[in-house]
Amino acid sequence: MVKIKGFAEWLPEHQLLQDEIIATIKEQFQLHGFAPLLTRSIEHLEDLLDQGETDKEIYAVNKLGSDSQAEWGLHYDLTVPFARYVSENQGRLQFPYRRYQIQPAWRGERPQLGRFREFIQADADIVNKGSLELRHDADLLSMFQNTLSKLPIPATQMVINNRKLLQGFYQGLGVDDIVPVLRAVDKLPKVGSEETLQTLIREGLSDGKAQAVLDLCAIKATSSEELEVVGDLGVSSELLSEGLAELGEVLDRANSSTIATPVAAALHIARGFDYYTGTVAETEMLDYPDVGSICSGGRYENLVHGDREAIPGVGFSIGVTRLISYGLNHEFLSSEKVSPATVLVAVNSEDKRADSDAVANQLRRRGIACMVSDSDAAYGKQIKVAERLGIDYVWFPQAEGDEVKSLGGRSQEPADSTNWVPNS
Amino acid sequence: MVKIKGFAEWLPEHQLLQDEIIATIKEQFQLHGFAPLLTRSIEHLEDLLDQGETDKEIYAVNKLGSDSQAEWGLHYDLTVPFARYVSENQGRLQFPYRRYQIQPAWRGERPQLGRFREFIQADADIVNKGSLELRHDADLLSMFQNTLSKLPIPATQMVINNRKLLQGFYQGLGVDDIVPVLRAVDKLPKVGSEETLQTLIREGLSDGKAQAVLDLCAIKATSSEELEVVGDLGVSSELLSEGLAELGEVLDRANSSTIATPVAAALHIARGFDYYTGTVAETEMLDYPDVGSICSGGRYENLVHGDREAIPGVGFSIGVTRLISYGLNHEFLSSEKVSPATVLVAVNSEDKRADSDAVANQLRRRGIACMVSDSDAAYGKQIKVAERLGIDYVWFPQAEGDEVKSLGGRSQEPADSTNWVPNS
Repeated sequence: MVKIKGFAEWLPEHQLLQDEIIATIKEQFQLHGFAPLLTRSIEHLEDLLDQGETDKEIYAVNKLGSDSQAEWGLHYDLTVPFARYVSENQGRLQFPYRRYQIQPAWRGERPQLGRFREFIQADADIVNKGSLELRHDADLLSMFQNTLSKLPIPATQMVINNRKLLQGFYQGLGVDDIVPVLRAVDKLPKVGSEETLQTLIREGLSDGKAQAVLDLCAIKATSSEELEVVGDLGVSSELLSEGLAELGEVLDRANSSTIATPVAAALHIARGFDYYTGTVAETEMLDYPDVGSICSGGRYENLVHGDREAIPGVGFSIGVTRLISYGLNHEFLSSEKVSPATVLVAVNSEDKRADSDAVANQLRRRGIACMVSDSDAAYGKQIKVAERLGIDYVWFPQAEGDEVKSLGGRSQEPADSTNWVPNS
Repeated sequence: MVKIKGFAEWLPEHQLLQDEIIATIKEQFQLHGFAPLLTRSIEHLEDLLDQGETDKEIYAVNKLGSDSQAEWGLHYDLTVPFARYVSENQGRLQFPYRRYQIQPAWRGERPQLGRFREFIQADADIVNKGSLELRHDADLLSMFQNTLSKLPIPATQMVINNRKLLQGFYQGLGVDDIVPVLRAVDKLPKVGSEETLQTLIREGLSDGKAQAVLDLCAIKATSSEELEVVGDLGVSSELLSEGLAELGEVLDRANSSTIATPVAAALHIARGFDYYTGTVAETEMLDYPDVGSICSGGRYENLVHGDREAIPGVGFSIGVTRLISYGLNHEFLSSEKVSPATVLVAVNSEDKRADSDAVANQLRRRGIACMVSDSDAAYGKQIKVAERLGIDYVWFPQAEGDEVKSLGGRSQEPADSTNWVPNS
């Protein structure tokens, strides 16, 4: 009976908050025509080990008492299972295929504030056979920025970059091995410029090249026009031009529709996973920089194994558990509701409980969540129970006409269960 | 890239169906004041092995490459994790505590139709410190029967029994070891009377006692009055009387409010798990007896470890994955919607895509799910895409005034995105 570190379980009031957040995300994704998907929790280990540096983080799953080696592992994100699902079902899906997926993922990392071993992610991706137009990157960014703005959280900003731009820049600089440079850049916000510079020099870059890498990282822009400063760094390559054009187009399109906070380009964004090939994105909480990214993702050209042609995709993922844990810790999220009920129907005396049940059933038929008091204690005590549960109204069934008390407003009014509505 | 047997993954149209079913269940549970809970997926192995005959079915979870023995296993139901959660948080919860929980569970059984290794369950339980009144068993049965009647499935009936009644009857008969008798009875519907009789005799019961056990199993009733026939079997014990009184009270109360199909007592119901102590329930699909129970559960007095006093509970669980797999197989469930969108906004030509985006955003702001066509192909082709996705309406943005086509009704009417509603 010991809590397991890194495996979050919320109290009822925070569960309700999580439920509200998930419902809002789901609603926005569905409004955009994204279809739900739940994949199995396990994958073949070789499929999990195929992607990036993740081997040490995987939980293996095996029949208890089995003599053979584990063949399965719990998925560490929702992109890899989604790619596998699309690959398996490519003959039966309608393309472009838009799906969202809200379920747990697992990583055996050392737990700390905001980093869990079991955590709920909310992903939305679009994939297509053959090719997937660049406008989807922008449309999806708008959808996510819009979704985040509907959540009960402070202002967020999505910041993007492009892998081709980064790789093209490093190639233009004459760097041979790009991977360690990408990794060093990915850690920049955590370790700072000075340490990143030293790491790059240790990786064999000249002082000048290392400085150029850092100069690129410092660039921020909210339009293709503002991105033109990249040219001033004096580096060029075909891939750099391509990445720059893509990034500019995505930025301009994402910001063409009115969204709460414009999407920004920030050229230090790299993203750890190896499967990204174009757009990459992270999301900052503007007043809480220490929270890190609460929504990340990007474009992947080669993750889904198409039978006859490529199946490129783009998708982003909101870290629901991370958001809630930071929100509770930093107190930008809170919840007073412990029960989802809107009304507590009081019980006058046990022999009249049936009257209270009848009121409750009538309210429920009309879509109003309620519970019947568990005791026939004095009304003052029943009201206290409602207050503890964060229930807004207490209903008193009475022979001479029912009454309902609003606990917020402290008023008590006659009411009829066949037509009463909350906040009336 | 091989499917894993027993781990269900649905196509988008069946995912939508599952989503609809889960949303309906959730809505009903919330209307009754049950609060959401998600527990972690893993439990300490000793907690899982503590309950009943489940050791061979557990999936152990261990860090990949770890040298030490696995300490955790995936939960095989949602009752054990719930009991552990209540026990851990008993100082911080409001009692009686009502919660629902909809998430996967795992069992390493041999997969077959309706039996999965990973499956979604929808549970609702109520627990209280000290004691929990019997009316909760009845109220919860009504809630579940009501919930099942809202699902898009054929008629179901909840059938109940009482463990005290069974144990009291066996004691009254003079049977010493009750467990093998309970197990034999539990298998009766599968193997039939003759084989059960032989099993009971093999367990050491005389022919007469074995026959009495079977006679009890044959009794069915929908009221306490009808239950009086149990007395005719000539067996008596204090526990039998107690169980009989409880069963009658639960039955009468559950059937006192109008529900689609009355709850019935069927005295062969035993339920495999060892933690039930009173009411036990299963649910039959009346026209599909081979489906087996789609909703089961019962009362447990000792599952939650209270610090100072007992924390008894009662709860039932709908087998969502089981229901969907049988429903698709037996064709009592079907779905034509592949996309959650209600409207496909057509694109006249790529240079006018912004007009279509504007219509879509307007509709979304008004809560109408839509997607913008992925191509500017001939309208006939765009309509075909909507048909393939099960989308009901196609919207045509036009300079001279927008029009919307209902694919069901084949009509096409002028429409304004600021006030149009579906089915109008």
